[in-house]
Amino acid sequence: MSDVLQQLAEILKTRREGDPQESYVASLHDKGLNKILEKVGEEATEVILAARDVDQGADSKIVVGEVADLWFHTLVMLSHLNLDACAVLECLEDRFGVSGIDEKASRDAGNK
Amino acid sequence: MSDVLQQLAEILKTRREGDPQESYVASLHDKGLNKILEKVGEEATEVILAARDVDQGADSKIVVGEVADLWFHTLVMLSHLNLDACAVLECLEDRFGVSGIDEKASRDAGNK
Amino acid sequence: MSDVLQQLAEILKTRREGDPQESYVASLHDKGLNKILEKVGEEATEVILAARDVDQGADSKIVVGEVADLWFHTLVMLSHLNLDACAVLECLEDRFGVSGIDEKASRDAGNK
Amino acid sequence: MSDVLQQLAEILKTRREGDPQESYVASLHDKGLNKILEKVGEEATEVILAARDVDQGADSKIVVGEVADLWFHTLVMLSHLNLDACAVLECLEDRFGVSGIDEKASRDAGNK
Repeated sequence: MSDVLQQLAEILKTRREGDPQESYVASLHDKGLNKILEKVGEEATEVILAARDVDQGADSKIVVGEVADLWFHTLVMLSHLNLDACAVLECLEDRFGVSGIDEKASRDAGNK
Repeated sequence: MSDVLQQLAEILKTRREGDPQESYVASLHDKGLNKILEKVGEEATEVILAARDVDQGADSKIVVGEVADLWFHTLVMLSHLNLDACAVLECLEDRFGVSGIDEKASRDAGNK
Repeated sequence: MSDVLQQLAEILKTRREGDPQESYVASLHDKGLNKILEKVGEEATEVILAARDVDQGADSKIVVGEVADLWFHTLVMLSHLNLDACAVLECLEDRFGVSGIDEKASRDAGNK
Repeated sequence: MSDVLQQLAEILKTRREGDPQESYVASLHDKGLNKILEKVGEEATEVILAARDVDQGADSKIVVGEVADLWFHTLVMLSHLNLDACAVLECLEDRFGVSGIDEKASRDAGNK
């Protein structure tokens, strides 16, 4: 389970070269960066609305699915820019190991 | 490296109980869901702008950092709703193994 | 020209009662608030991308059209909540006449 | 009341030349287009959250104020690109008078 994102990044790299008529991922690359960024914006809005729905009692699967959609489209975007999930995970690791976001709590939480 | 997100989810769980004066994460929870969702929206916009900047030649670290910020705040949001990254990763795995997003390409990419 | 928004608000009120099969506005109301808010989020992203395009030399009509779409969908949203453009225009007028946004500049700009 | 947006567009033009230390509008222009677009994204998210709050019983002033903020920042953006509200209002008028958005309902609503 643990390296789903890296596996997904690999799959996305392959699909980028696919037929836009057959692969959703290839069709996004074919339409270009703006189309991919529109999807990122749409999915972010859907995450926000789903979170409010879940907060009011809707099934939590709704927000989980929307976050999956949002992360998926950010991975497609990274792939379009020839980047991948590893860089993002390293960035998160660096921040949590070293500095940034929440230093004190980071120390409290022990070494990583 | 591979389970950065799960580790991060664990850390976020701990920090949620922290002092809002000292932990950024605790302060977000303290302010409530709307504040966390505002951050998700802000970070999504910053991802979009950074992607355009990188597309025009800016250092790719910019967009990586913004995606890290976006994922981080979606993790805080999930934590606020008593959910975590595992559910999202499972969701992504299910979609790529079984159906959804891009079935044909999925089959082409082989079994997972 | 000057009261386009009020006229539009009036039209939107009428269309709300229309047939969802024939009127886009009626169909948005029929699908509910979340659908309307998704459109607001989508159009905001499109405004941002169009502004970047125009800044890089694209025809300025692009961003004007996207702002029109964004305002239009915020008007539908207000209508869905039984509010209208007048309240927003009054709000903008109050802030510019009295306080808020930019007090000093407001004073410099003279009385309104 | 009817030409609030045009008056506001005029004021924004003047303020653009102001001192960034004293005018919020001048400070936005000074920081550049990305900063202005971040604000557009932020305000769109706040509109969405406020609409949900109002839908659940919060005071309707909340969403009116957020829409005012959103429109205001789109006006600043247009001004940054040397455009103004008139172009947007003309665009809305054209669509409602001639074609587009919702033709049938437009005809039903009478001539404009």
